[in-house]
Amino acid sequence: MVRSMVRRASTGKLFLVIIAGGSGTRFWPLSRRRRPKQLLPLVTGSPLIADTAARLAALAPPSNTFVVCGKAHAAQVRRMLPRLPKRNVLVEPVARNTAPAIALATAHVASREPNGVVAVLPSDQHVADAASFARALRSAARAAEEGYIVTLGIKPTRPETGYGYIRLGGPVAEGAREASAFVEKPDAKTAQRYLSSGEYLWNAGIFVFRAEVMLRAFREHMPELFEGLERIRSALTGRRYRLVLAREFPRMPSVSIDYGVAEKARNVAVVPGDFGWSDIGSFAAISEVRPADSRGNVVAGEGAIVLDSDGCVVMGGRRPLAVVGMSGAVVVDAGDAVLVLPKDRCQDVRKVVEALKERKLEDYL
Amino acid sequence: MVRSMVRRASTGKLFLVIIAGGSGTRFWPLSRRRRPKQLLPLVTGSPLIADTAARLAALAPPSNTFVVCGKAHAAQVRRMLPRLPKRNVLVEPVARNTAPAIALATAHVASREPNGVVAVLPSDQHVADAASFARALRSAARAAEEGYIVTLGIKPTRPETGYGYIRLGGPVAEGAREASAFVEKPDAKTAQRYLSSGEYLWNAGIFVFRAEVMLRAFREHMPELFEGLERIRSALTGRRYRLVLAREFPRMPSVSIDYGVAEKARNVAVVPGDFGWSDIGSFAAISEVRPADSRGNVVAGEGAIVLDSDGCVVMGGRRPLAVVGMSGAVVVDAGDAVLVLPKDRCQDVRKVVEALKERKLEDYL
Repeated sequence: MVRSMVRRASTGKLFLVIIAGGSGTRFWPLSRRRRPKQLLPLVTGSPLIADTAARLAALAPPSNTFVVCGKAHAAQVRRMLPRLPKRNVLVEPVARNTAPAIALATAHVASREPNGVVAVLPSDQHVADAASFARALRSAARAAEEGYIVTLGIKPTRPETGYGYIRLGGPVAEGAREASAFVEKPDAKTAQRYLSSGEYLWNAGIFVFRAEVMLRAFREHMPELFEGLERIRSALTGRRYRLVLAREFPRMPSVSIDYGVAEKARNVAVVPGDFGWSDIGSFAAISEVRPADSRGNVVAGEGAIVLDSDGCVVMGGRRPLAVVGMSGAVVVDAGDAVLVLPKDRCQDVRKVVEALKERKLEDYL
Repeated sequence: MVRSMVRRASTGKLFLVIIAGGSGTRFWPLSRRRRPKQLLPLVTGSPLIADTAARLAALAPPSNTFVVCGKAHAAQVRRMLPRLPKRNVLVEPVARNTAPAIALATAHVASREPNGVVAVLPSDQHVADAASFARALRSAARAAEEGYIVTLGIKPTRPETGYGYIRLGGPVAEGAREASAFVEKPDAKTAQRYLSSGEYLWNAGIFVFRAEVMLRAFREHMPELFEGLERIRSALTGRRYRLVLAREFPRMPSVSIDYGVAEKARNVAVVPGDFGWSDIGSFAAISEVRPADSRGNVVAGEGAIVLDSDGCVVMGGRRPLAVVGMSGAVVVDAGDAVLVLPKDRCQDVRKVVEALKERKLEDYL
């Protein structure tokens, strides 16, 4: 019985929701307000969001794939994903964290297929082993069929303090374990303990659930959000949709799905995955997701000239960008702005962004 | 008697010849074929050649100041030195090292004032103490009056292997010593010995002499050059000047004045000088000639944002050029090309130039 439902889910009833609301500055000068990380070709020649859609293409047709993004990026997203029906790009009137974004997408899926299984995925992550990733998602979809809100948990490879963690519980379905706790970003000591214990996985922000299960969870754990969502749902297919969305969406609490639902719900499962995942958190992470030369340099841009250098990330454009005798440096030429810093100082890109604001150079943000 | 001649020389009879034939690539991407080092504002907001002319302005009026430069740079030189009579910019039909350039300028001076004293100076050097420099030049002019070919020798401050050296002999005139030998660039051990001995000075390529004395020296030591020069001199004030110059100049041997004359002549004197001299041999040298911030960074360009960095040279333009957490790096944004390298690798700029040639990107040279 479960098997046949699964087969249906993975061929017809699986919906994909790609969350593309990010507006980070960690990739300045490449990333800008109008051109956030997910729209940049950081790994292949395509934008990350197109890589993400391509990676998922075998799991659901474009008609069953949604993107949630901000107003400023909708036109670009539609251009970058030409096979996606334009109406499947759901535009947030304002940025409101992941819970409202997922609620909106879930409402759209539910109006088409209340029993539809929804896989929510960030638009700006990298996966090295797409087949293994698809297998994990299918496992998650099976557990979701059974009523779980399922997250993919990434097997940690280092004591990372920049991610949330999920504690593994007992088995709950084929390939799935109970998610016995969602924990916030730990300190270094705790992160080391999590890594050693083998009982914790990274929270990658990937969730799979039946639409009606998530709607029930919103009703129970985020009633305020749910009320607004109900008003949006009542207008979903009518002419008042935009009006109602513009009124209700900004009132929703700006809360993550982790905090708003996953940490509170009891029916949360986790499917462990090990498929070469990276959230590409900074320029330094580019080294892990792009092929490097024999000396560990990742070089992009036809104008890049990298000589006698080791472990550098050099990203330029057409004009000459010459890097000589450097070690572990990040050198980025965005055309109208240039950044140079050591790989281990990538978090300090924000200091540059602050300096640009102070100098009233916000046109470059 | 000597005193009164000196006074005449330093008020009316001193001629300045600024040699601006250089076409180096050590300052790529700032320096290009059409915009060599001497035309770049590397130290102040003005081009080096304008700094040089300003430093010398008290020694001779513009009418007695000549510049020798290449065809490609003559228009720029005239714009950069607007007070100079246009005819005082002597244009070399082809680049031919310093002996032919100095010969040409000496011919021009001699046609106006056979007894004129000529001070020949490179256009692209820096002098920190201009008053002391002027005093040394006046000493040299006095010795030149007495028939010497006088060079300014720079008191060495490090065992530099990139310069020629001059060995000090006995006193020959007030403030001047015999130049008992001109020696080529030494190896490191020899350079250290030269430095320790106190008997060697750096050859800065600055020469002071009476015009007729130098013409005699050319006749004696470079007869082939002298013959061509005589043909140019015979046409100097006529309509055939350009034609004769274009025919004769390229035939002159491409030899430095050091090798062609100074190493051979017996009447060569040296005036030791210690006036904060630099030939600004590379981007690293910019640190020595421009004011640095409290952490030793030299920063130019309104778009430069330098944070948590030490001992860097950062030269940009209007657009943002952000350097964070770097130590001893050279970061240069020329607008259409960018260079990043460690300060102690500045000599490797030539490798970039070679790479550009290999890639047929000579438009950027």
